Amino acid sequence: MTGAVPGAAAKRLVLLSGRAHPRLADDVAKHLDVAVAPQSSYDFASGEIYVRVDESVRGCDAFVLQSHCGAVNDWLMEQLITVDALKRASARRITVVAPCYPYARQDKKHRGREPVSARLVADLFKTAGADRIMTVDLHAAQIQGFFDGPVDHLWALPLLAGHVRQKYGAERPTVVSPDSGRTKLAEKWAQALGGTPMAFVHKTRDPLRPNEVVANRVVGDVRGQLCVVIDDMIDTGGTIAEAVRRLLDAGARDVVVAATHGVLSGPAAERLAGCGAREVVLTDTMPIPDGKYFDALTVLSIAPLLAQAIQAVADDTSVTGLFDDGS
Amino acid sequence: MTGAVPGAAAKRLVLLSGRAHPRLADDVAKHLDVAVAPQSSYDFASGEIYVRVDESVRGCDAFVLQSHCGAVNDWLMEQLITVDALKRASARRITVVAPCYPYARQDKKHRGREPVSARLVADLFKTAGADRIMTVDLHAAQIQGFFDGPVDHLWALPLLAGHVRQKYGAERPTVVSPDSGRTKLAEKWAQALGGTPMAFVHKTRDPLRPNEVVANRVVGDVRGQLCVVIDDMIDTGGTIAEAVRRLLDAGARDVVVAATHGVLSGPAAERLAGCGAREVVLTDTMPIPDGKYFDALTVLSIAPLLAQAIQAVADDTSVTGLFDDGS
Amino acid sequence: MTGAVPGAAAKRLVLLSGRAHPRLADDVAKHLDVAVAPQSSYDFASGEIYVRVDESVRGCDAFVLQSHCGAVNDWLMEQLITVDALKRASARRITVVAPCYPYARQDKKHRGREPVSARLVADLFKTAGADRIMTVDLHAAQIQGFFDGPVDHLWALPLLAGHVRQKYGAERPTVVSPDSGRTKLAEKWAQALGGTPMAFVHKTRDPLRPNEVVANRVVGDVRGQLCVVIDDMIDTGGTIAEAVRRLLDAGARDVVVAATHGVLSGPAAERLAGCGAREVVLTDTMPIPDGKYFDALTVLSIAPLLAQAIQAVADDTSVTGLFDDGS
Amino acid sequence: MTGAVPGAAAKRLVLLSGRAHPRLADDVAKHLDVAVAPQSSYDFASGEIYVRVDESVRGCDAFVLQSHCGAVNDWLMEQLITVDALKRASARRITVVAPCYPYARQDKKHRGREPVSARLVADLFKTAGADRIMTVDLHAAQIQGFFDGPVDHLWALPLLAGHVRQKYGAERPTVVSPDSGRTKLAEKWAQALGGTPMAFVHKTRDPLRPNEVVANRVVGDVRGQLCVVIDDMIDTGGTIAEAVRRLLDAGARDVVVAATHGVLSGPAAERLAGCGAREVVLTDTMPIPDGKYFDALTVLSIAPLLAQAIQAVADDTSVTGLFDDGS
Amino acid sequence: MTGAVPGAAAKRLVLLSGRAHPRLADDVAKHLDVAVAPQSSYDFASGEIYVRVDESVRGCDAFVLQSHCGAVNDWLMEQLITVDALKRASARRITVVAPCYPYARQDKKHRGREPVSARLVADLFKTAGADRIMTVDLHAAQIQGFFDGPVDHLWALPLLAGHVRQKYGAERPTVVSPDSGRTKLAEKWAQALGGTPMAFVHKTRDPLRPNEVVANRVVGDVRGQLCVVIDDMIDTGGTIAEAVRRLLDAGARDVVVAATHGVLSGPAAERLAGCGAREVVLTDTMPIPDGKYFDALTVLSIAPLLAQAIQAVADDTSVTGLFDDGS
Amino acid sequence: MTGAVPGAAAKRLVLLSGRAHPRLADDVAKHLDVAVAPQSSYDFASGEIYVRVDESVRGCDAFVLQSHCGAVNDWLMEQLITVDALKRASARRITVVAPCYPYARQDKKHRGREPVSARLVADLFKTAGADRIMTVDLHAAQIQGFFDGPVDHLWALPLLAGHVRQKYGAERPTVVSPDSGRTKLAEKWAQALGGTPMAFVHKTRDPLRPNEVVANRVVGDVRGQLCVVIDDMIDTGGTIAEAVRRLLDAGARDVVVAATHGVLSGPAAERLAGCGAREVVLTDTMPIPDGKYFDALTVLSIAPLLAQAIQAVADDTSVTGLFDDGS
Repeated sequence: MTGAVPGAAAKRLVLLSGRAHPRLADDVAKHLDVAVAPQSSYDFASGEIYVRVDESVRGCDAFVLQSHCGAVNDWLMEQLITVDALKRASARRITVVAPCYPYARQDKKHRGREPVSARLVADLFKTAGADRIMTVDLHAAQIQGFFDGPVDHLWALPLLAGHVRQKYGAERPTVVSPDSGRTKLAEKWAQALGGTPMAFVHKTRDPLRPNEVVANRVVGDVRGQLCVVIDDMIDTGGTIAEAVRRLLDAGARDVVVAATHGVLSGPAAERLAGCGAREVVLTDTMPIPDGKYFDALTVLSIAPLLAQAIQAVADDTSVTGLFDDGS
Repeated sequence: MTGAVPGAAAKRLVLLSGRAHPRLADDVAKHLDVAVAPQSSYDFASGEIYVRVDESVRGCDAFVLQSHCGAVNDWLMEQLITVDALKRASARRITVVAPCYPYARQDKKHRGREPVSARLVADLFKTAGADRIMTVDLHAAQIQGFFDGPVDHLWALPLLAGHVRQKYGAERPTVVSPDSGRTKLAEKWAQALGGTPMAFVHKTRDPLRPNEVVANRVVGDVRGQLCVVIDDMIDTGGTIAEAVRRLLDAGARDVVVAATHGVLSGPAAERLAGCGAREVVLTDTMPIPDGKYFDALTVLSIAPLLAQAIQAVADDTSVTGLFDDGS
Repeated sequence: MTGAVPGAAAKRLVLLSGRAHPRLADDVAKHLDVAVAPQSSYDFASGEIYVRVDESVRGCDAFVLQSHCGAVNDWLMEQLITVDALKRASARRITVVAPCYPYARQDKKHRGREPVSARLVADLFKTAGADRIMTVDLHAAQIQGFFDGPVDHLWALPLLAGHVRQKYGAERPTVVSPDSGRTKLAEKWAQALGGTPMAFVHKTRDPLRPNEVVANRVVGDVRGQLCVVIDDMIDTGGTIAEAVRRLLDAGARDVVVAATHGVLSGPAAERLAGCGAREVVLTDTMPIPDGKYFDALTVLSIAPLLAQAIQAVADDTSVTGLFDDGS
Repeated sequence: MTGAVPGAAAKRLVLLSGRAHPRLADDVAKHLDVAVAPQSSYDFASGEIYVRVDESVRGCDAFVLQSHCGAVNDWLMEQLITVDALKRASARRITVVAPCYPYARQDKKHRGREPVSARLVADLFKTAGADRIMTVDLHAAQIQGFFDGPVDHLWALPLLAGHVRQKYGAERPTVVSPDSGRTKLAEKWAQALGGTPMAFVHKTRDPLRPNEVVANRVVGDVRGQLCVVIDDMIDTGGTIAEAVRRLLDAGARDVVVAATHGVLSGPAAERLAGCGAREVVLTDTMPIPDGKYFDALTVLSIAPLLAQAIQAVADDTSVTGLFDDGS
Repeated sequence: MTGAVPGAAAKRLVLLSGRAHPRLADDVAKHLDVAVAPQSSYDFASGEIYVRVDESVRGCDAFVLQSHCGAVNDWLMEQLITVDALKRASARRITVVAPCYPYARQDKKHRGREPVSARLVADLFKTAGADRIMTVDLHAAQIQGFFDGPVDHLWALPLLAGHVRQKYGAERPTVVSPDSGRTKLAEKWAQALGGTPMAFVHKTRDPLRPNEVVANRVVGDVRGQLCVVIDDMIDTGGTIAEAVRRLLDAGARDVVVAATHGVLSGPAAERLAGCGAREVVLTDTMPIPDGKYFDALTVLSIAPLLAQAIQAVADDTSVTGLFDDGS
Repeated sequence: MTGAVPGAAAKRLVLLSGRAHPRLADDVAKHLDVAVAPQSSYDFASGEIYVRVDESVRGCDAFVLQSHCGAVNDWLMEQLITVDALKRASARRITVVAPCYPYARQDKKHRGREPVSARLVADLFKTAGADRIMTVDLHAAQIQGFFDGPVDHLWALPLLAGHVRQKYGAERPTVVSPDSGRTKLAEKWAQALGGTPMAFVHKTRDPLRPNEVVANRVVGDVRGQLCVVIDDMIDTGGTIAEAVRRLLDAGARDVVVAATHGVLSGPAAERLAGCGAREVVLTDTMPIPDGKYFDALTVLSIAPLLAQAIQAVADDTSVTGLFDDGS
C-alpha cells in the first residue's frame, strides 16, 4: 500500500562557508572538486547577522566551515545561525568544521566560578543542530569528550613535520617545547623526525627567593644544535619569542618555530619577526592578515587535509586511516 | 540518621551585569538596594572573552543583565559564558535579563532556508543554563513560546504613555502606527491615553501602475492634530522619520515619537533630529552613545521597572500585577 | 569482517491517515499514486483510542495526515499515538501532516498565567517521535519556530487567489482585511491579484465616549467596488459576516470571501450564507460536514498541494520551489 | 554585594482542578483545608480548550487534579495545557494527580506495530512540565517506570478491604480473581482480610476440541461461600458480570464485587445491576454519572487518601508511610 | 554548486561482541555469514575495562551482542563503553542485542524507595548511544516501554515449544505454570502445543493458621499426565524444582521443564538435576558453564533466531513476521 | 485560595554510602555529626545488585558516597541504582561523591574508535539523576567539563603537602614528577613547600638507535637531595617504583612518595615496599586492603575534607574557600 520513491537523490556533499576565511573554503572546495554553496550573509546595522542558504539543501550532507579568528563571537554566531538554517531546511547531516576550535583554552575551571567555555561551545553547536564536529589539533584532546557525538580530530603534525624534515632533517634538529605543557607534543615531533633529541624551556623559581623571581631555563643540551620550537597555537607570541631567545642564549645554532594555529594577536608578528628565529612555520587554519606577514614566515595549506577528511566523512571511509600510525 | 542543616542560608538575590550597559545595571542595583556582584570580564587579544564571578554564588538567585546593543554577538556570548559560570558555581536559579531581546526580528522564516534566530537564541540561553528569561516589549509576543520555561515579558507602554499623557494629554493626541504591522500596539496606546483617535501610515501601490510605484499614505484624519507615532524599536530610523514627514505633510499640527528600544544604528540620530518631530521619547533598554544625543530626545529610565520585576521574581510575588490591566 | 546488506530496501513513502478527514487522505494518496496504508483505529468504550499499523513500516518515510477539526483533542491524540506506534515500529522518518495546525491561535500569552498551547502542541509532536511537520497557512508564522526541526509551511494563497483572479480578475477587486491583524496577508493578496486596491475593516472607539462604544469602520474607498474579504481561517464566522455587512453598507457592489481553513464552528454556515456575500471560497484542509454546505460556498481541493509537497520531501527536492516567488 | 530577600514567601500548596470531576477536587480541597484555585477553563466552538490560572502561582507547589473519564482525550489535553500554563507562570513544582491513569491498559505492544500509549502519556506529562505524578492503583505497576521522575503510587486496597472486612468479615469471604491476570491482587486482598481462602475464574479450552470452545471455569471451592470478586477497574463490566454468574452457578452463597476504578462504560451499570451481585463497591476516582447508579452500588470516597498524600508530598513527609505494611 | 558522492558505501552490517558469551556471537555470525568485527577488550588491573573497535565502522549498521550473565555489571559496562566507542566512531545506527535483558526483574518499585533498575538500564543504553534494543522474552513486556525507541522483542516460545511438541506431542502434555505469575505464558504454551490442558502450582495459606503456614498446591488435574513446567528464566532453580516435586507428589507421570534463560545461579544445576525432571530444556541466551551441565539438560541454540532478526532489521523487513501469529 | 504549608521540613542533609569503602563513609559521617542513612544493599545470586533506601528521603539533600576501587563496575552500578532510587523517592537534590572518579584515565580518544569513558560515566550519573558531582584530584581537570552541572573538585594537595612539609620541610625536599605528564602538579607542590627545587624523570630515546631503546633519565640535580616523587594516583606502581630507583641511582639521599589515590592494583604494594622509598604517603580515597599495608606506608584521612565540602554544599557556602589560594 506504499509507493516507491524512484527519484530519491543520492546524498549530496554541500560545503558552506562563513565569512571569516573565504580563501580557505575556496581551497577546500577546489580539492573536493565542488563549489562553495551560495549563501547570503551580511550584518544588519544593529550588529545582528543575517544568513540565508541560497539553494536547496534537502537531504544533503552539509559541512559548515568557519575559522574562528579575530571577531570570534561574530564568526561563532554566524556559524550557529547557518547550522540552524540548514537544520530547518532539512539537511540530512550537518558537520561543523572549525579548524581552530573557539574557546579551546578555557577547557576547565582554573579557579572557582569560572566557566568551561569550550564545553559551552560544544553544547551550542549541538543545540543549533550540528551532528558532528571536525577540527584540527585541539588545545587539549579531552575537548573531544565535550561533544556528544563524533568529533573528527585531525592532526597537522604530519604536514608540519614533513616540511621540517624535508628542509632540516639532515641537520638532525632538536625538538623543543616552549613550556612544560607541550612535552608530549614534542615527543611526538621527535618521533616524527626520526628519533631526534628533545629539550624544554620551563619556568623556574629561584630557590633563594621563593615566590618571587621567575627565570626561564632551558633543560637539555642545545649548544650548537638546530632547534625546532613547537606549539599548537601562537597567540600573542610572547612565550614562543622568549623561548627562541633563551635557546639562542643557550648556544643553539639556529631556531625554527612550528605551530598549527596562527592566531597572531596584537604584537605577535612583530615579536616573531624580531626574536631571531630562522623560520616560523604555520598552517592557514586561520587567515594571516596582509600586514602580519614577515620574511621568516612560511604558511602551509591545511586545505588538502580538510578536504580529504570531509571526503572520507561523506564516503564513510576511515578518517583515522588518513594518519600514519593508524591511531 | 540524618543531620539538620542549621546554617542553610536564605536564597540570596544576586545581580550580575555584562559590560554592554553598566549604567543600567547600576541603576537597577540602586533600586534593588544591592550592589552589582563583582565579576572579572575582559577580552583576550584573540577576541575570546574571559569571565569569572568573584564571590560565592552557591544557592543564590542570580539575575544576569545584559543589553544587546552594538556588538550584539559579543554581548550575547559574554552573557552565555556568565550563565555557564553561574551554573557550574551552583547558583540555584539563573534568570537572563535581556531588556531588548537579541535577534528578535528574525522570529520566522520570511523565505525558505532562513534560520529562526530568535528561537536559536532562546535555545542558547537554555543550553548555557538559564532557568528563566526577563525581557521588555518583544518584537513579537510569540517569542515567549520559543523558550521552554518562564518568560517575564514586561511592558514599557505604561512608562512611555504616562510621560506622553502627562505632557500632551490635554491636547488629545492622535496615536499613529508607522506601518500596518503596529496597529495593535497603537490600539493599546490609544486606550492608555484615554480613548484618543488613531491613524496609520501604510505603504500602498498606485492602482494605475501596479507593481511599480509605492507611496506612503496616511490613513485617518490628522489635520491640525498632535500625533504620537509609536513603535517597539527604532533601528536606523528610516520608517519613523518618513512617517513623521508624511504626517506633517498631511497637516498634522505637531508630531511626537515614542518607542521602547533605541537601537539608533547608523544614521538614526541624524534622521530623527532632522525629521521635524517635536520630541522623541525612548527608554534606556539600550545605551545611547554620547554622540547620538540630540535636542528633541528624551530618555526614560527602564531601571525601576526592571528592579520591581526582579524583586517580584525573587519574592515569588506577581509580575503580572505590576501592570495596570491585570493581564 | 562485515557483511554487505544486499537486500536493503530503498526508503519507501508511506502515507497514513487519522480518522478525522479520510477523504482528504484518499485524495492526497491518489495524487501520490499510492494507497493509504492500512491501519486499525477505533475508540474503546472508555474513550481511549486504539491504533495499530497493519503492515511493516521498517525503514519507511512515513507521513501521518490528520485534520484537526471538531473533536480536536481526539484527533490530536490519535495522531500522537500513531506517531508513537511508527517510532516503535522502526519507521526511518516521521512527518506529521497537520493542514490546519491545532491550537494555532493560542500562540502567545495574551494575559498572565495563560499557556502557549501552540508551543505545547509542537513539543507533543516531538515527544511522540515526529521528525518534521508539514502544515498550511499558520495563524502566525512564528509557530514554525516552536518546533525544533524542519517545518514545511505551505501557502494556499496561490490556489485561492488563482480562483479569484480567474473568476473576478476583470472586475479588479479590492482586497479587504476583516480586521487590522490581517493587513499583511491582504497586501500579499493585492500583489497576487496584480496590484489591486486595498481596504480594512477595523474596530474603533467613539472619541466622545471612550472605552465604551465600539464601531466597525471601513478604511479605504469601496464604493461601487467588488471586494474580496480574506482571512486565514473562518471559525464561527462572526467577524467575517460583520465585515461583509459593513462593506455592503459602505456601498460595495459585491463581496467575495476567501479563506484557507473552514472551521465553520457553531453558527458559521448560517452566518456566511446570510451575510450577503456572493461567494465564499475555502479549501478542504478541514472537512465540510454535509449539513454545512450552502449555495455560495466553493471548496477548493488542497490535496494536490499536499501531495506535491510530500513527494518533494520524500525526494529531497525543494518545497520552497513549489511557490512562485521562490521564498 | 548581594541583598537579602526578606519577603520570600514560603512555598504554598495550590490545588487546581480540571473540569472532569469537580466534586472530587472539592472533596480533596476540603480535606486539605484549602479552596480549589480559581481557573478559567472553557471550550472554544472549534473544540480547542482555553485555560487560564486566575491567581499568582509563582513559587507555589501546584497539584493538578484531573479524572480521565469519558472524554479522556479532552481531559488529558486540558491537564497538559494547565501544566504548561503553570510552568510558564513560574510554579516551583508541578504534580499531576491522575487518580485513574489514562491509557494504562496500552502498557506494552500486544502485537507488532502497536503504540505503548501509557509511556507516551508519561512523556506528554513530562513535556508539558510535570515534575511528578500521583496516581491510584496502576493497571501494571511497571508504568511507574515510564515516568522519569517520582511517581506516588497510592493503593485503594486498604480503603476497599476495610469496607468489606467491616461488613462481611464475619462471613470469612473467599477472594476471587475474575481472570488469571489478577491473581496477585487477589492474594493481597486475602491477606488484608486476614488470610481468607482464594479462587479464580479462568478461561479454558475443552481439550477435546482445541482452539475452538472456550469456557469460564471456577478454580477453587466456592460452594456455600460468600465471594468477593476483585479487580483494578470495571470498564464495560463484561468480565466481572460473567465471573459473578459463574460463581453463583458454582454454588456460591453470595457475591460481592470490589474494584478501584469505576469506568462504567456502555452497558456496565446494567450488567452489574443485573448480574446477581449483592454489592458492588467502587471508589470515586472517576465520577459516576447520575444515570449509572443502581441499588447495589456503594461508592467510597478516595478524597481523604489523595488529600493525605498531597499533604505528605507538600510537607516532604513519607507517602509510603500512609500504607500499613510500610512498603 | 555541490558535488556528487560517488563512492558512498552501502550501509554495512557489523556484528560486535562483548566477552561474556563469545560462542553465541560466533554462532550468530555464522548464520549471518559474517565474521564478528575485530575488537580489543580487556580489563585493567584497576578493574576498569578498555575497549577499542579495530576496524572502521563509519556509516555502518552496528549490532552489539552481549549476554548479561554472571558478572552482570562488568558485561553491562563493557557493552555501554562499546556503544560509546561506536557512536564516536560514526556508526550510523547502533543496536544493543541483549538476549537476556539485565535487571529485568527490578521492573517496578515493589516497596517504597526502591529503584526501577530495568528503566535505568534502558536509559543507560540510550545515553551511551544505542538507537535500538533487541532482546528475547522480557520478564515483563512493559519493559519495552522503558526504552524511548524501537525494541525488537523476540520470542523463544516457538523454538522451545517446537522441541517439546516434536518429542512429547503424542503424549498430550499438560502445561504447568510454577506460580501464579506465569499463567499467561502457560496459556500461550498450551495453545502452541495444540490446546493441551493446563495447571498451576501456587502458594496458599492454611485458612486455619493465617499469615503463618505456606503450602504449594497443584491446581488442576495432573494425575498420570506428562507435565511441562514452563518459565521465562531459571535463576537459582528453587521455585522450579519445588514445582516439579509437587507435580510428582500429585501423581504426575513425568515432568519436563522448559525455560528461555538459563541463569543457573548458585545451586541451580544441582537442584534441577536432582528434582526428578525427565528433561530440562533451555536456550543458550546465557552461556552454560561446563561444570553446570547435567544429564537431563538440553540446550537449544538461540543463534538462528537472533541472526534472522538482525538480518531483518538490517534489511528493513518485518521482525514481527518472523513469528507465527503475525503479531 | 491556597493553603500555607506549615510543617514543611527544612532541607535535611542525608549521607548514603555504597558498599565499597564503608569505613570512609563512617569517618565522613562522624565529621558531619550524622549517621550514614540506613540502606539495604546486596547482590542477587545472578550478579544483579539490589538497593533500597530504608528511611524517607523526601525533600532531602542527598550525598551518595562510593569509592570506585577493585570491582569498579559493580560499585558504579550500585551508585547509579542508589541515585535512581533517591530520584524516585523524591530527594530534592542528589550529589554523587566519587573521591576517585572512575574511568578518569580514558578521558580522550588516544587512538581512533576508542570510547571516552570518563564522559560516558558523567552522562551515566546525569541519567540516573545526579544533580552534582563531588570528587578529589581528577586525572585531568577537563573532566569537570564532561558533566553538565556543578562539579566540586577538591584538592588533596594541601593535606599531603602539609604532612610532607611538617615532616621533611627542614630538609628542603626536591619535588620530582615521575614522568613529563605531571610537571604542572610538581610545580604546585614546589610552591606549596615554599619554593623548593624540582626535577623530572622522563622517558627518552637513544638518539643513535631511534625508535628502539628507551631509557628513564632524571632531569635536574638530585644528588644528595631528599626527593618527593608526586602523582595523582598509584595503580600498579611500576612508574613510581622505577622513578624512585632512578633517583637513588642518580645519587638522591632519600626518596619520599606522595599521591592522592592508592589504587594499588596487582603487584603495587610489593613494588612500593621494595623500591627503596623512605615513606609512601597516600590518602584513603580508596580502601587499602589489609594485606597491602607495608612498613613505609602512611595513609592520611580524606574524610575531614569531604565532610567540610559536603557541609559547605549543604549550607550553600563556598567550597572554593576551603582551599588556600582562594581559586
